[in-house]
Amino acid sequence: MRVINFSAGPAGLPLPALEKARDELLDYAGTGMSIMEQSHRDKPYEAVHRDAIERLTRLLGIPDTHTVLFLTGGASAQFALIPMNFLSAGQSADYVMTGVWSEKALDEAKLLGTPRIAATTVNADGKYTRVPTQAELQLDPGAAYVHSTSNNTIYGTQFHTMIDTGSVPHVCDMSSDFMWRPLDVRKFDFIYAGAQKNLGPSGVLVAIARKEFLARGRKDIPKIFRYATHAEADSLYNTPPTLAIYLVRNVLEWMEGQGGLPGMEKRNTRKAELLYGALDRLTGFYTAPVEKASRSVMNIVFRTPSEALDAVFVTESKKAGMIGLKGHRTAGGIRVSAYNAVSVQDIETLVSFMEQFAKSHG
Amino acid sequence: MRVINFSAGPAGLPLPALEKARDELLDYAGTGMSIMEQSHRDKPYEAVHRDAIERLTRLLGIPDTHTVLFLTGGASAQFALIPMNFLSAGQSADYVMTGVWSEKALDEAKLLGTPRIAATTVNADGKYTRVPTQAELQLDPGAAYVHSTSNNTIYGTQFHTMIDTGSVPHVCDMSSDFMWRPLDVRKFDFIYAGAQKNLGPSGVLVAIARKEFLARGRKDIPKIFRYATHAEADSLYNTPPTLAIYLVRNVLEWMEGQGGLPGMEKRNTRKAELLYGALDRLTGFYTAPVEKASRSVMNIVFRTPSEALDAVFVTESKKAGMIGLKGHRTAGGIRVSAYNAVSVQDIETLVSFMEQFAKSHG
Repeated sequence: MRVINFSAGPAGLPLPALEKARDELLDYAGTGMSIMEQSHRDKPYEAVHRDAIERLTRLLGIPDTHTVLFLTGGASAQFALIPMNFLSAGQSADYVMTGVWSEKALDEAKLLGTPRIAATTVNADGKYTRVPTQAELQLDPGAAYVHSTSNNTIYGTQFHTMIDTGSVPHVCDMSSDFMWRPLDVRKFDFIYAGAQKNLGPSGVLVAIARKEFLARGRKDIPKIFRYATHAEADSLYNTPPTLAIYLVRNVLEWMEGQGGLPGMEKRNTRKAELLYGALDRLTGFYTAPVEKASRSVMNIVFRTPSEALDAVFVTESKKAGMIGLKGHRTAGGIRVSAYNAVSVQDIETLVSFMEQFAKSHG
Repeated sequence: MRVINFSAGPAGLPLPALEKARDELLDYAGTGMSIMEQSHRDKPYEAVHRDAIERLTRLLGIPDTHTVLFLTGGASAQFALIPMNFLSAGQSADYVMTGVWSEKALDEAKLLGTPRIAATTVNADGKYTRVPTQAELQLDPGAAYVHSTSNNTIYGTQFHTMIDTGSVPHVCDMSSDFMWRPLDVRKFDFIYAGAQKNLGPSGVLVAIARKEFLARGRKDIPKIFRYATHAEADSLYNTPPTLAIYLVRNVLEWMEGQGGLPGMEKRNTRKAELLYGALDRLTGFYTAPVEKASRSVMNIVFRTPSEALDAVFVTESKKAGMIGLKGHRTAGGIRVSAYNAVSVQDIETLVSFMEQFAKSHG
């Protein structure tokens, strides 16, 4: 009855996380209330909140130098909040441009200070088919921070080796590939990720911040917009999105049961091998625009021989129980979003469909 | 199995709204996905989004001059966003001070401009036991807006006649009494309300804005923080908190089934009569600090003869299946939050308990 969900986000979630939510929706842990009906200042919710933070800390091996935050407003709000917090008058910040989302982040920063482009891989068509190499970066050692986007949902590119920003703090938007594999958190000063790809429903964002970096944040901005406010209050300064955090907790529990981040990496690597393997085998029919070294494991984009056939592909795949395969309107074509909840078997089903489709329409 | 939930928020929700969510949690309307797994750009979610806006519009009789917004960050974020959007350099705004939440709103405004206190009912102890009358307001006709708080959760006070701000735009935080009865939206320029009292789970906020007022908003602030951005995009500029909006939709459906806002008013008025009636009858035991004309229908505060007995009241009421009755730490005593989902029967149960408690401990 459940479809195979290849949506770019909000995306499919692991069935056990949803089943648990369903089973306790009217009565959480014998409290006689739903988790969403509990006060955020009472023990049942506080335990869920703490459990979610502990699971994140355990899965990622987050050291004491860093702290976990639950925030709202999605990545789009952080595009503005990062410069509000960390860019002072006269300072500049470096932006690494790899797609639509880094463009949006840059646009917000322009309204608040003087950001600088440290690298861009935009092509003559205004599109991106790769991420820059370390050698291409022109970093300003005096920048307040470097902002990068680890994975680009629309263009299907991803950094497989993260850039090295030297002594300049590294702020990274990991919304679409957070926790797809183990991550060395110590290399980052501020990581943020909307939950609606690998982690849970929309409406909550996870950030991991170096405490020293937070301490440098501006204090002349509204209190609610200071990251330090939320860090000091364990993300309970004001009412958090309790139901969304509870669902994230359930997804993290599922991840731990699947071998944690090494388990996710194994699963996601296998999925990408199968899918890119098929694209490389069926080059007479499908075109994959992204340079091999920049291919995303999370969002795989390709085209059939024509826009008309792209549309047929989307319609026929839907009939076969697979949804969300239409490419973003900016990029066109087909996009497979293969976040953590997508199984190897789901990808095998898709690859069979792709082979069959190429045969009947080739 | 379900307890009687008197929490101040997040608060209890109508059982039918939760049951519906539970029944379709794994498969929304035959789509083979949960509502939280749907793309916010696809038809199933878009229909829910539109349905929620239409139900709000119908229930409140919102005219074409106004628009509905779904936002995040709770009321605390609006405390900063209101002056960011509507206060220009050199302008002042009038704040009507009636409790902790208006103090927080004022504090954020101070970081962004020069707000002015138009009235305050704070007493020598720093507390509030009433709201001001129209005659007590000293309004500045040149103010960018007047900010008020319609109901005060902590002190249990409420405006029963809304203040008249003349030609100055009226911005009102209705988080804790939004939709408790019919409301003439035309008298307001910007209404905002976190969902977690009368409307749904935490993680989403409803705003109703006069379009002309939005058009005056500043354009030199980050795009994500401009209310106009969200109005232009029907609250789909970035990924909205889809699950929370879906739950709001379910609650609105329940409200319509209960006779809409006239039905809510009848129910809430009866609840308040029963509860304040008991307090006025049992004055030898209970003390109700709020002046009669300012008594809140949503949050009813009182004390037993001692702090020790207050604690016993909370413990014994819990054993009798009623939770959330401990007063806010700022105010102490007992607080009954009787939002829309609390039934007349729930209040009857509480009143019987109060009578019994007064008898056995009096």
